[in-house]
Amino acid sequence: MTSATRPLLLSNVRLPTGEAVSVSIANGHIEALGPNLTPPPGAATEDGGGALLLPGFVEGHTHLDKTHWGRAWYRNEVGPNLVDRIENERAWRKTSAHDAGVQSLALARAFVAAGTTRLRTHVDIDTDAGLRYLEGVLETRHALRDVLDMQIVAFPQSGMLVRPGTQEWLERALAAGADVLGALDPALIDGDPVASLDATFAQAVRHGKPIDIHLHEPGEVGAFTLKLLLDRVEATGMQGRVVVSHAFCLGALPQPEPLLERLARLDVALLTSAPPSRPVPPLKRCRELGVTIFGGNDGIRDTWTPYGTPDMLERAMLIGMRYDLRRDDELAMAFDCVSTAAARGCGFADYGLHAGARADLVLVEAETVAHAVVARPPRKLVVAGGRIVARDGALVGALISAT
Amino acid sequence: MTSATRPLLLSNVRLPTGEAVSVSIANGHIEALGPNLTPPPGAATEDGGGALLLPGFVEGHTHLDKTHWGRAWYRNEVGPNLVDRIENERAWRKTSAHDAGVQSLALARAFVAAGTTRLRTHVDIDTDAGLRYLEGVLETRHALRDVLDMQIVAFPQSGMLVRPGTQEWLERALAAGADVLGALDPALIDGDPVASLDATFAQAVRHGKPIDIHLHEPGEVGAFTLKLLLDRVEATGMQGRVVVSHAFCLGALPQPEPLLERLARLDVALLTSAPPSRPVPPLKRCRELGVTIFGGNDGIRDTWTPYGTPDMLERAMLIGMRYDLRRDDELAMAFDCVSTAAARGCGFADYGLHAGARADLVLVEAETVAHAVVARPPRKLVVAGGRIVARDGALVGALISAT
Ligand SMILES: [Zn+2]
Ligand SMILES: [Zn+2]
Repeated sequence: MTSATRPLLLSNVRLPTGEAVSVSIANGHIEALGPNLTPPPGAATEDGGGALLLPGFVEGHTHLDKTHWGRAWYRNEVGPNLVDRIENERAWRKTSAHDAGVQSLALARAFVAAGTTRLRTHVDIDTDAGLRYLEGVLETRHALRDVLDMQIVAFPQSGMLVRPGTQEWLERALAAGADVLGALDPALIDGDPVASLDATFAQAVRHGKPIDIHLHEPGEVGAFTLKLLLDRVEATGMQGRVVVSHAFCLGALPQPEPLLERLARLDVALLTSAPPSRPVPPLKRCRELGVTIFGGNDGIRDTWTPYGTPDMLERAMLIGMRYDLRRDDELAMAFDCVSTAAARGCGFADYGLHAGARADLVLVEAETVAHAVVARPPRKLVVAGGRIVARDGALVGALISAT
Repeated sequence: MTSATRPLLLSNVRLPTGEAVSVSIANGHIEALGPNLTPPPGAATEDGGGALLLPGFVEGHTHLDKTHWGRAWYRNEVGPNLVDRIENERAWRKTSAHDAGVQSLALARAFVAAGTTRLRTHVDIDTDAGLRYLEGVLETRHALRDVLDMQIVAFPQSGMLVRPGTQEWLERALAAGADVLGALDPALIDGDPVASLDATFAQAVRHGKPIDIHLHEPGEVGAFTLKLLLDRVEATGMQGRVVVSHAFCLGALPQPEPLLERLARLDVALLTSAPPSRPVPPLKRCRELGVTIFGGNDGIRDTWTPYGTPDMLERAMLIGMRYDLRRDDELAMAFDCVSTAAARGCGFADYGLHAGARADLVLVEAETVAHAVVARPPRKLVVAGGRIVARDGALVGALISAT
């Protein structure tokens, strides 16, 4: 948060526990939260009308640079394989007028309007485009710096070892402002899991950056790569600084327990978009064993997929459906995946509904968290970094015209 | 349709093919569809503003009598097994003030507002409640008779053979106005697949009614039951009059082809809600082989499940996600599941966007059918049986207060 905000007293709201409280906010943070609060000096006041108070949502994995959000419909006629989709996108990006800056801003604004205040985006880095997409997303991050806490992953979408020169571009991306080093299928795309992972870990250590790897590799080959990865987490001391995105293999192994236990021990987190058509890591078992597992959309309306929305309550609903979570206490786990667990997995600081946390708040008309997840009601109010940024689903104030 | 409607000319709309047309409507049916139409004598006129024209949606399988739609949130604390859920619901229905008439009307009205004009609902028939839920749903059908074409399945939710007396109640339900005979897991619930299926087919034949069976039985036991069922379709000449709902077994067999071919040959249709956490019948292969496969919500916000909405575009999206349908031509299949294929599977007559069909129309701001499925835009206009019944997602006219 870069500029001062006026203090705010948000009264008459309900916590997920049911307790009626007010929230006093100063300097962009929650100062106090409880019944009968005194407004901070000079505070604006806002009556929450008894609505449910949630922490600002966390998008744990998306691709802002790829989206067509708000543009003309993209007619998808792409072949079914991963390489078809990679090649289609690279060809399309060369010839279309798609602008990663304009499009990432459009989608990021929609995220904020729907209550997301922290977001991790992967951004393609390749030998065709160099840092072009990164530059666009960096502009978006700057434009929204007061309201959206954004992490950028430098992501070699077209492969790393397999495309000479890519590593040097990743190097430049980290120097230019990417926060996290990305990676992609060390065996099935890069063709050499040991060399690929060694290169990624060496680069991450050299720059002092965390890692977030796309691991689509299925079943036994995915398990093999994951074991190599965990060896390197241990060898380099990167405990607590690595995310494995997707990890479909963990949904298809007869005995995933030893890997899950090792993930917990090394504090390596898992990201799932909860795809209904793929195996997924076992959510409840991960949580029991202490593995952080959190949620994200992955791509939203791009050349890869027509699906996805910037509404993290909808992603929580899809996570709930994928894992057949029906009870209210189970739906609270689905919400945790797009809030507290995602903040922990990505390392977003000062998160939550407590004094000292950044004042990132969402109000919805819902009786409970479970109700909010399945009904996905309009966002009555969104507060980001202590500022009111959206009302009834629409951006307000400076954000209306922010570019 | 029971009462006369004023003719209507709906101009300036786009067909799914992209063609700009008008639609002339008289006596509740589409009279003509094409460019430059003359309004029928005395017609009202409506400018579609260039929006996309879709046929009214078809809900192929829901449970209107169970829902809490619009009521206070139901806190789900139910155990994980099918029998837990059956027992929980029976106990809850005895002690709660839930009214199947009031609740089915609330949900059916929401379906109409979101563009559904044909709907098949299962209604619980059991020895505790007798015809109580059926009577409520019959009232709803009557209240909405001019706009919603509703089929009612008499459904033995608590089992049939396993609860003596249930068959007699099913008998009375068919006499009282149920259109279709329901059934449930002849092996795993009723405990005797041969006797259970024999009883169901004998009763259906006696009443001249079609059958719609809930078949949750997994893998090989489901395949065994399905084979027994197909034998009876053949023996009783009920080709074209049987729906198998769910049929999870077809998603888990190593060799489903012989069963699929037999389903096609006997014109037995499949219903799927496309659950992300269960195996599902292979959609594309079914379509290639000529098996009618269509979509439905199953329960919506009841004691079984917190999920589901009366928006069939959302169900189409969930079907698309479950089957990983990404291309535009694939998303059109997902839409077919909640429109043409569902009308064919349930036997709703005069369906579609052509002269002679019932005038059931939906307008949305979307570029293509695929776009409509993923974006689920508000329903700009809904016409049912030739009447304008909703605008911008809200009921209009007589329906505002229909009870
Ligand atoms: Zn991704
Ligand atoms: Zn059902």
